[in-house]
Amino acid sequence: MITSFDAQRDTGLLSPVRAGTEVESAVSDRAWLQAMLDAEVALVRTQAALGTVPPSAAAAIGAAARAEGFDLRAIAVESRETANPVVGIIRTLTRLVAAVDPAAAEYVHRGSTSQDIFDTGAMLVAARALRIIRGDLRRTADALAVLARRHRDTPMAGRTLALQAVPTTFGLKAAGWRELLLQADVRLGRLLEDGLWVSLGGAAGTLAGYVEYAKVDGADADAVRSGEYADRLLDGFAAETGLARPPLPWHALRTPIADLAAALAFTAGALGKLAVDVQTLGRTEIAEVAEPFAAGRGASSAMPHKRNPVLATLIRSAALQVPVIATGLTQCLVSEDERSGGMWHAEWQLLREALRLTGGAAHTAVELAEGLVVSTDRMRANLDITGSQVVSERLTALLAPRLGKDAARKMLAAASADAARYGTSLAQELAKAPESAGLFPREELDALCDPTDYTGAAGQLVDRALG
Amino acid sequence: MITSFDAQRDTGLLSPVRAGTEVESAVSDRAWLQAMLDAEVALVRTQAALGTVPPSAAAAIGAAARAEGFDLRAIAVESRETANPVVGIIRTLTRLVAAVDPAAAEYVHRGSTSQDIFDTGAMLVAARALRIIRGDLRRTADALAVLARRHRDTPMAGRTLALQAVPTTFGLKAAGWRELLLQADVRLGRLLEDGLWVSLGGAAGTLAGYVEYAKVDGADADAVRSGEYADRLLDGFAAETGLARPPLPWHALRTPIADLAAALAFTAGALGKLAVDVQTLGRTEIAEVAEPFAAGRGASSAMPHKRNPVLATLIRSAALQVPVIATGLTQCLVSEDERSGGMWHAEWQLLREALRLTGGAAHTAVELAEGLVVSTDRMRANLDITGSQVVSERLTALLAPRLGKDAARKMLAAASADAARYGTSLAQELAKAPESAGLFPREELDALCDPTDYTGAAGQLVDRALG
Amino acid sequence: MITSFDAQRDTGLLSPVRAGTEVESAVSDRAWLQAMLDAEVALVRTQAALGTVPPSAAAAIGAAARAEGFDLRAIAVESRETANPVVGIIRTLTRLVAAVDPAAAEYVHRGSTSQDIFDTGAMLVAARALRIIRGDLRRTADALAVLARRHRDTPMAGRTLALQAVPTTFGLKAAGWRELLLQADVRLGRLLEDGLWVSLGGAAGTLAGYVEYAKVDGADADAVRSGEYADRLLDGFAAETGLARPPLPWHALRTPIADLAAALAFTAGALGKLAVDVQTLGRTEIAEVAEPFAAGRGASSAMPHKRNPVLATLIRSAALQVPVIATGLTQCLVSEDERSGGMWHAEWQLLREALRLTGGAAHTAVELAEGLVVSTDRMRANLDITGSQVVSERLTALLAPRLGKDAARKMLAAASADAARYGTSLAQELAKAPESAGLFPREELDALCDPTDYTGAAGQLVDRALG
Amino acid sequence: MITSFDAQRDTGLLSPVRAGTEVESAVSDRAWLQAMLDAEVALVRTQAALGTVPPSAAAAIGAAARAEGFDLRAIAVESRETANPVVGIIRTLTRLVAAVDPAAAEYVHRGSTSQDIFDTGAMLVAARALRIIRGDLRRTADALAVLARRHRDTPMAGRTLALQAVPTTFGLKAAGWRELLLQADVRLGRLLEDGLWVSLGGAAGTLAGYVEYAKVDGADADAVRSGEYADRLLDGFAAETGLARPPLPWHALRTPIADLAAALAFTAGALGKLAVDVQTLGRTEIAEVAEPFAAGRGASSAMPHKRNPVLATLIRSAALQVPVIATGLTQCLVSEDERSGGMWHAEWQLLREALRLTGGAAHTAVELAEGLVVSTDRMRANLDITGSQVVSERLTALLAPRLGKDAARKMLAAASADAARYGTSLAQELAKAPESAGLFPREELDALCDPTDYTGAAGQLVDRALG
Repeated sequence: MITSFDAQRDTGLLSPVRAGTEVESAVSDRAWLQAMLDAEVALVRTQAALGTVPPSAAAAIGAAARAEGFDLRAIAVESRETANPVVGIIRTLTRLVAAVDPAAAEYVHRGSTSQDIFDTGAMLVAARALRIIRGDLRRTADALAVLARRHRDTPMAGRTLALQAVPTTFGLKAAGWRELLLQADVRLGRLLEDGLWVSLGGAAGTLAGYVEYAKVDGADADAVRSGEYADRLLDGFAAETGLARPPLPWHALRTPIADLAAALAFTAGALGKLAVDVQTLGRTEIAEVAEPFAAGRGASSAMPHKRNPVLATLIRSAALQVPVIATGLTQCLVSEDERSGGMWHAEWQLLREALRLTGGAAHTAVELAEGLVVSTDRMRANLDITGSQVVSERLTALLAPRLGKDAARKMLAAASADAARYGTSLAQELAKAPESAGLFPREELDALCDPTDYTGAAGQLVDRALG
Repeated sequence: MITSFDAQRDTGLLSPVRAGTEVESAVSDRAWLQAMLDAEVALVRTQAALGTVPPSAAAAIGAAARAEGFDLRAIAVESRETANPVVGIIRTLTRLVAAVDPAAAEYVHRGSTSQDIFDTGAMLVAARALRIIRGDLRRTADALAVLARRHRDTPMAGRTLALQAVPTTFGLKAAGWRELLLQADVRLGRLLEDGLWVSLGGAAGTLAGYVEYAKVDGADADAVRSGEYADRLLDGFAAETGLARPPLPWHALRTPIADLAAALAFTAGALGKLAVDVQTLGRTEIAEVAEPFAAGRGASSAMPHKRNPVLATLIRSAALQVPVIATGLTQCLVSEDERSGGMWHAEWQLLREALRLTGGAAHTAVELAEGLVVSTDRMRANLDITGSQVVSERLTALLAPRLGKDAARKMLAAASADAARYGTSLAQELAKAPESAGLFPREELDALCDPTDYTGAAGQLVDRALG
Repeated sequence: MITSFDAQRDTGLLSPVRAGTEVESAVSDRAWLQAMLDAEVALVRTQAALGTVPPSAAAAIGAAARAEGFDLRAIAVESRETANPVVGIIRTLTRLVAAVDPAAAEYVHRGSTSQDIFDTGAMLVAARALRIIRGDLRRTADALAVLARRHRDTPMAGRTLALQAVPTTFGLKAAGWRELLLQADVRLGRLLEDGLWVSLGGAAGTLAGYVEYAKVDGADADAVRSGEYADRLLDGFAAETGLARPPLPWHALRTPIADLAAALAFTAGALGKLAVDVQTLGRTEIAEVAEPFAAGRGASSAMPHKRNPVLATLIRSAALQVPVIATGLTQCLVSEDERSGGMWHAEWQLLREALRLTGGAAHTAVELAEGLVVSTDRMRANLDITGSQVVSERLTALLAPRLGKDAARKMLAAASADAARYGTSLAQELAKAPESAGLFPREELDALCDPTDYTGAAGQLVDRALG
Repeated sequence: MITSFDAQRDTGLLSPVRAGTEVESAVSDRAWLQAMLDAEVALVRTQAALGTVPPSAAAAIGAAARAEGFDLRAIAVESRETANPVVGIIRTLTRLVAAVDPAAAEYVHRGSTSQDIFDTGAMLVAARALRIIRGDLRRTADALAVLARRHRDTPMAGRTLALQAVPTTFGLKAAGWRELLLQADVRLGRLLEDGLWVSLGGAAGTLAGYVEYAKVDGADADAVRSGEYADRLLDGFAAETGLARPPLPWHALRTPIADLAAALAFTAGALGKLAVDVQTLGRTEIAEVAEPFAAGRGASSAMPHKRNPVLATLIRSAALQVPVIATGLTQCLVSEDERSGGMWHAEWQLLREALRLTGGAAHTAVELAEGLVVSTDRMRANLDITGSQVVSERLTALLAPRLGKDAARKMLAAASADAARYGTSLAQELAKAPESAGLFPREELDALCDPTDYTGAAGQLVDRALG
């Protein structure tokens, strides 16, 4: 039996990439609510530490600030009246505190403003999500390092503009995927280091409410006047939450939002690169890699033979969404006044979506990388299907000094075209061509046309990337 | 008591613009599931009508296809294994049918493919949502028509590049808002007319599965061979669902998705225009309009005096999100193969989000338009604050024939600057200026400088727009 | 010798998809300037027809309004002073007219505002560009119709999630590409029909300037008062330009811009679908299609053997850009006031870019479609590489009535896995399997496993789409 | 006289924000061409330093690699044949070198690939543009620092959701604008430090072409085999160009592109924040700031009295475009294979546009910030128009301990409403209200209601931000 209440919930049905993942829980409505309550508690504890709120009040508020006691749906629906959910959350929190300690209820949200609580809560949620994502990026990168090392010298076709170009190695490919994920990790790490800021500004970013209540609540008048009180409040709030202290109140200076947008879009894009390459290399006709096998995984509703690359599909579905969602977040930099009526409000769901899609993709990539099935036989076989044309660049290098660059290129283009037309190998055609016939003994020509011997500095590049 | 299951749900906490609205329910996971079940039922009914499925099987499937019997969260989480939820839905549906009528269970999803069911379900959801949105657009447009008619001749400052330019009327302003909403309504109506297509293609868009089962199930061999069977299946399925028949199976030809994206972005943008104008005109210093008063509405957590324009804020929050979300949908046109691994999957949540944000904004606009408080006094007063400079264009027109256009413009620019500098009126300055002094009697000059008399064809434009 | 003036020009170096195409010229700065001059001329001719401007003045203005006489770069640089180029254009136009007929100069831009001229000019440019694009879409569609007809029954692998799924036909594929282009054409056609509006509003959309000058210039007072003059001015201006008359002045109601954005993004996306499919099918390992051969075409700077799919690459490069550019245009719906300071200005370059990228892609598609090289042999060969697994759906349909759907699916999944593992054919495995052995004579089994015989209603779908 | 050649050029007519600016020249087609030639020269010089190219050849190539000798338009149009302009550039360069030193011509582009040259050139262009932008950001920030210091204690209304909220100071506002620009500067600086990479990978990222030619050209065999040669080539090329060495060849690992997109979108957004605030504060009814006066600046074609805020308009026009353009760049992370056919090509024009729009906006902001006209009188006057309601938060703080928070809020809400209704001051209403009457002497009440005394820690925040 499903109640009308249940009917509203988002279970992940339309977003399998994150359904049931850890990051999904970490950014759920309930987690967001708890983070906002954590912000209220951190604030009142800081005020208590500064002596302007009784410790017992801070304790009572801390005890009541548990998401379990709140009717999320009611708060959500009522938030239409105030355009943000904090007003309703405070109302409930105040009621819950008052039921236990009426005097303490006066200290709930003391001097504060909705945006301070919402944004601090959002940063707490983001921090938790980023840590999960980083863990998954590193596990994925570790698995790719194993692949890169193992396949340091496994030759495969390098492909450009959808055609075989020159040989590369699967090790270099895996090292490239890993490098991109490490760069994503650096960007997320930079944010966790000092880019997620506590929000503390009061009604319009001057801290006036905090300061005024502090005076009422017995703060030292000199400390208030000199700004020392405000300074200590900011430092204390940052320390309590574990977030960074901003250079200025940022209600309308949306640096952390834009930075999150950029870092998440980067991460989703990096994961998407891995996914599209796996899809391409796994095509029926290429078949150089396959997703890890798991019973029932990748089943099709119509075709029993198919084992769909579902992990890459899920990752790509996120990589397609996050950059456009990130655009909406970046645009919120252009917020008017001391708080925008609309831009701020547009950020919330977009930020959550960017976090959980990226997190879901990272989670999915772990399994993909750890279980990727690599077919070195197919890689070798595919290198042969052009009859050595993939080494035409090498032969140009060898023939150019003898024939001139231009003549060498033209001759090789013609020989390649003939090889393609007649299904012969490039070596055969070169052995026949008047310009090149006799330049190299046939065995040397065959060796020069061996694609596995033309991988340049791929091995050293892998070593350096992993080293 | 909140269970861990509940912890995943999206209650609207981060998206107040749609929390608790009708459209939110219409696009919920449960509604989406029911729509997919409706698609399965419509399919089997069509097959029964064509004689290839026993009527009793169609009846049994119809009876079992009730969302109540499904564990949404389990299906969502399991969908990670197949990258779409349809496989799990069919599994449950088959089990439910088999429990009552084992023979009927064989006919579930007969010849079909996940995408046929998902996309048909999505179109059913979209159709229901668009109807709700259109209703709200029309109610809003009706309310704006009342305002336009009532204020046909209410003068106010026309503003360009954030400055007062020349007078306009509030009637023309309201008529403009209405016109944009009517145009949105036309675009949504066009989609409902024939732009939301049933999806029926089978595994790769050839209808082969449907046709093959039809042969097994006793369809007339000639009708199958000639294509008549496929033809009747398509027509029947369209008729059963009330959706349109596509020119071709559209698994990888995403016209309806791109069209929905465009129409929803247009609608959200049209509503956003109304919202930003209301915000601007409602600024403390302008105060020409205010949002409808409701107890508790617009309350601030910090400032008791404030009555925030929450309706405009909510609408704008949606108008900022939908266009970027729509981008992601439009990009899905570039789907490779017969079904993309990732592009199709990226559409789902984006489509739902675009529908419910736009729908939430439309719902919110009804109340905004129906209750908008208009201060004609403030409009009049604001027209005066530039000392009639808003009619400088008119005076140019009158002086140009006498002084030459260029000289007239220069003289009026100088007189305007002096009026601004000395806090005098433009009429005073013109009366003093050697070039214009004596050209018009002072009373005529005053009349010419009356901004309420310089509204051009605004009245007729309103009449025509409403007529 | 390159002058510093030349150093600024955009020659198409970074945008080969449109370099040198007809649409590029049609939307160039010079074309845009001429279109704005055309708008000025159409305006004054309309005013002359209404008797408020001397015919000689209209003639003099018409004679001077030739882009050749204007210093584009100077106007562009000076436009920083006024934020739009129209002020400078009028200054030059006035000077040019005055040099010949000083009295006529007074009638330049009479009663008008920059946005009327700019937007009308933009719509003229857009109209010309859309006509070019439509011509190219139709030529491409015609070429695809030839392919669809010729290959109505050419079997090839249908591919979903990057894997071979069930057979389809190349005819159906080509018909799908064509259908999408025809739908793009419908959307562009709808815009040309009545969606590109003349802009006529005057300073703030009330037509006040036009009306005031008309009074000064001797228009019938009753006609002015009743709105008849304004009405005839609008109709006349629309007729002169060949554009449609808007329901209301649209300085801040950006319907045509949003509609252009949507239609161009659709068109670019539709062309992009063709391009990514050609890239995929042309992959070295698939090789079912190739781009038309032309000497030197697709040459690589490094690899003589390569013949890069440059047409598809160029088209795709446009398809990736236009949707995001379109986003910026769509967002301009949320324009504040009677004219936005910034939103309007953001549209210009984005609109031009969307037009020329889409136009370049359409131009490129003509050659791609007309010359596409199709390898039916490779299509046939690729169908065989899975050993008939592509017909597993069909066998499910046949075995399900005998074994039950679930058992049939399981058996076929196992047989498919064995066929893949041992490199045998599905028919061989089925002949061996205890569940299916003996159900079909071996010849029948072979026939059933023939992929060329399992293309469903593909042929009829093609007929209907082309019919 | 305008030739057909001229007809193609982009003079900036549709993009006044960058027309004629330094950054426009720095990213022009000609600058881009020169940067690609610089890349070729840096490559051959590095090869000469490593002893594999004769110094005379490097010198000859360096002498010929001057953009003046190239027909930009011809190269642009011909680039349609190869999908990139490098092939044509090399052809011309080879011809120019050969005319002087035929032997040297063999060493042009030795071992290289188009993308190495294009991407290295793009990074050189980006580096030059970023340096210009940073200079303008710093000048703007310096001007804002002067404003922040001067107006440290200038009270003005803080505004949230478009309404006056509580007082703030103009100093804090200016400090916020500055802070955002400094953060943009940090992000650009980080890129210049080590984020703009030289591109060196050869045909598919293995360096094979470079290595093979090195062997032919007499490089030490051991150094080639050990990877030392490749290592020195990379280091040398980076040193020659002044760009950073990438961790791996990045043909399909688009980190620098995504990072540029993020940093430019951030910068444009930061500038946009300044612009929208200036527009808002400059509204006729608010009039707290004005753009610097310059003769002719901001003139309207219709309204002589207007002085449009053109600088803010231009900046905002860029801030609206760059984030969507950046989206297209970020999406290019998802590039398939060793080089994407389409994604790479989509980057070029988008990158140039993002650079020149951001650069134009930064250039424009210098003048805006340096000349911003601040009206402290209007700021003071506007603070009074609500009759002290802007201090309602403060009075809540004072009354809450006496009446309880909830009762205090209700009473102040009622008093504020009465003050608004009757046009009285909040102090008057409080003096009358039974709950508050007598709590404070009237003089104290008046002092408490003085908005200039309720600016919290604004002054200290400014000090800290500037310090």
